[in-house]
Amino acid sequence: MHIKKQRLLTPGPTPLLPAALHAMMGSDIHHRTEDFRTLYKQVLSDLKDVLGTSHDVLVLVASGSGGLEAATQNFFSPGDEVLVCSAGKFGERWVEIMKAWGMKATVLTAPYGDAVQPEAVEQALARNPNLKGVFVQASETSTGMQHDVKAMGLAVKKTNALFVVDAITGIGTMPLDIEGWGLDVVVGGSQKAFMIPPGLAFVAISPKAWAAADTAKAPRFYFDLKKERKNAVSGESAWTPNTALLLAFAEALKYIKSIGMDKVVENAQLLARATREAMQALGLELFSTSPGSSVTAVRPPAGMDSGVIIKEFRNRFNAIITNGQGSMKGQIFRLAHLGYFDFHDLFAIVAELELILAANGHAVRFGSGVAAVQRVYAEVALPKLELALS
Amino acid sequence: MHIKKQRLLTPGPTPLLPAALHAMMGSDIHHRTEDFRTLYKQVLSDLKDVLGTSHDVLVLVASGSGGLEAATQNFFSPGDEVLVCSAGKFGERWVEIMKAWGMKATVLTAPYGDAVQPEAVEQALARNPNLKGVFVQASETSTGMQHDVKAMGLAVKKTNALFVVDAITGIGTMPLDIEGWGLDVVVGGSQKAFMIPPGLAFVAISPKAWAAADTAKAPRFYFDLKKERKNAVSGESAWTPNTALLLAFAEALKYIKSIGMDKVVENAQLLARATREAMQALGLELFSTSPGSSVTAVRPPAGMDSGVIIKEFRNRFNAIITNGQGSMKGQIFRLAHLGYFDFHDLFAIVAELELILAANGHAVRFGSGVAAVQRVYAEVALPKLELALS
Repeated sequence: MHIKKQRLLTPGPTPLLPAALHAMMGSDIHHRTEDFRTLYKQVLSDLKDVLGTSHDVLVLVASGSGGLEAATQNFFSPGDEVLVCSAGKFGERWVEIMKAWGMKATVLTAPYGDAVQPEAVEQALARNPNLKGVFVQASETSTGMQHDVKAMGLAVKKTNALFVVDAITGIGTMPLDIEGWGLDVVVGGSQKAFMIPPGLAFVAISPKAWAAADTAKAPRFYFDLKKERKNAVSGESAWTPNTALLLAFAEALKYIKSIGMDKVVENAQLLARATREAMQALGLELFSTSPGSSVTAVRPPAGMDSGVIIKEFRNRFNAIITNGQGSMKGQIFRLAHLGYFDFHDLFAIVAELELILAANGHAVRFGSGVAAVQRVYAEVALPKLELALS
Repeated sequence: MHIKKQRLLTPGPTPLLPAALHAMMGSDIHHRTEDFRTLYKQVLSDLKDVLGTSHDVLVLVASGSGGLEAATQNFFSPGDEVLVCSAGKFGERWVEIMKAWGMKATVLTAPYGDAVQPEAVEQALARNPNLKGVFVQASETSTGMQHDVKAMGLAVKKTNALFVVDAITGIGTMPLDIEGWGLDVVVGGSQKAFMIPPGLAFVAISPKAWAAADTAKAPRFYFDLKKERKNAVSGESAWTPNTALLLAFAEALKYIKSIGMDKVVENAQLLARATREAMQALGLELFSTSPGSSVTAVRPPAGMDSGVIIKEFRNRFNAIITNGQGSMKGQIFRLAHLGYFDFHDLFAIVAELELILAANGHAVRFGSGVAAVQRVYAEVALPKLELALS
């Protein structure tokens, strides 16, 4: 254990796609050239393909939070009444954004780990026909919970409200039928299932949302999506683009298209399932009652601070995993699955977790968590074997 | 299993150190500048530190085989009588080189997997006082076998013969006291424990070898080590150097110095030991009777071609491991430990091997090989726990 390779195993930034990283070396291009316009058009077109939508998709030089702000200020006005589903740290971020923009938010809160139920959204919409928007996280990264955005979207679709979805960790980890389910504004980020570093956000915008934009009065300048749309037609960005990340994005989108976005989702779902089974095999409790596939939140053994597990991963194995956020710090650790993760990663992570538990005085049968992961692999990839095993 | 990261897990090229790889981006430097001379002097100086010798160490733009040739043509003459220890494909390479250079080689052969015994070398030296050189592999990469170069070196030291050691996979995987053990000419390569791509060889040369060089009559031009030595004093290379790899080498040497070369060796030894114990836990037979720590050669289960295992690693997990070489092809597979390998790698490799064995109809208890690796980790890193387990 003298050599310990650093391994980034968090739900964002996620592990980087080597081809994308290498492509960043080509960033000695200028952004007001035909070369750039070709690149930019390709990224916007591939991104639409990958998201499976004909809606406009616009890229911003910003973190995901910038994308959330853009999704608000372009389509709403101060004083607008909106509904926010809040079930974790990122739900709370929506509430902060509403506050910053002077919007009147009704908040449907679910305890950390739980989901806001679609019925509650439906009822709130029925109670208040003035609601201009419904804001939600597809996947709440802080707790590993996943919302039923399909049911919510179909409910919102029947009203005049816009359905605004933070899909930053939802994209690539769950099916998202943007048009079919009525997802009017969908926000994503580069450093999640897209396997590249942080720095780009993007927003998919429905015709219903564009219509709302015409009357929205919130001030805007940098995140002016209409301006971006106008420029995008000719392969231009409104402001200086992040060329390095766009070169990386182009490679990552090519890779994702080569696999198929549905398979990328399936990959995360499979790793999430194998992780849940491994945790159960190790006697650990899952945190979320409605677990998604971006990240699995796990409670440490009773009496143990989850920070110990984070620290042990870092010190013993040079592996970066994440603690709970906000009030959940110390109470959960989170294992990520979104983007460039594979079974090889998971075998090692679980073997290391077993050692960490043992090192901290918890009874562990070495290999038992790994075996649970292997059984999931075998069930899917070796179905004949699975018959023999069962 | 839709996402499968490519993983290079062979005994050369070995996994690359990211910092070294990144440094290659700085190769827009010219080699007849002070910047280059500073870099080259640093590499030569760090390389001596890492090898633990005050002997001259010279770097060549060549594969390891070029280094083996340089180690021959600079110190010997056509017609010279020499002794070659041959215990695998690389022993046979020495024999080919002797033949190409018109030298008269007596060959001490050990079957693949076994080692040539130091006593045999001692006896051969006693029988023929005209022997000008003894050639050996410190570590025979084709079989995972390790020679007792200490005992051999101390025997050769008492004679006028030079002891020429192919340490290409020996360096960084076993202790090598170049001066104390009388290793006159030691050859290494960049793509082994040095964690960078192939393209550089290096040769460490004792005063006794330099003295022999004065009378050696084999023709030489590109690999003229005296010419290299003369240039190296002022930080120059005789011919155009591989600047990209030298930039990488400088980073890798800095990394190795930060850990300590003894710890790099210990790392490989520990992984090799854990691998042997995992193979035994899985009921697999080790191939070598004298296993080293560069690579572990393992026999597949009876009736199985090792090529199946290689192919399954590639197809199922996108991981590149190596088959046997030459006549051993199909009969063994080889798991590497030298250089930038860690326990995380090994946990996953063993979990994958278990699945591959199961997929091919062999009885495997999932997690049992991984548990053997975990026990070795625990014994070393968690000694108190080990007491509780035993």
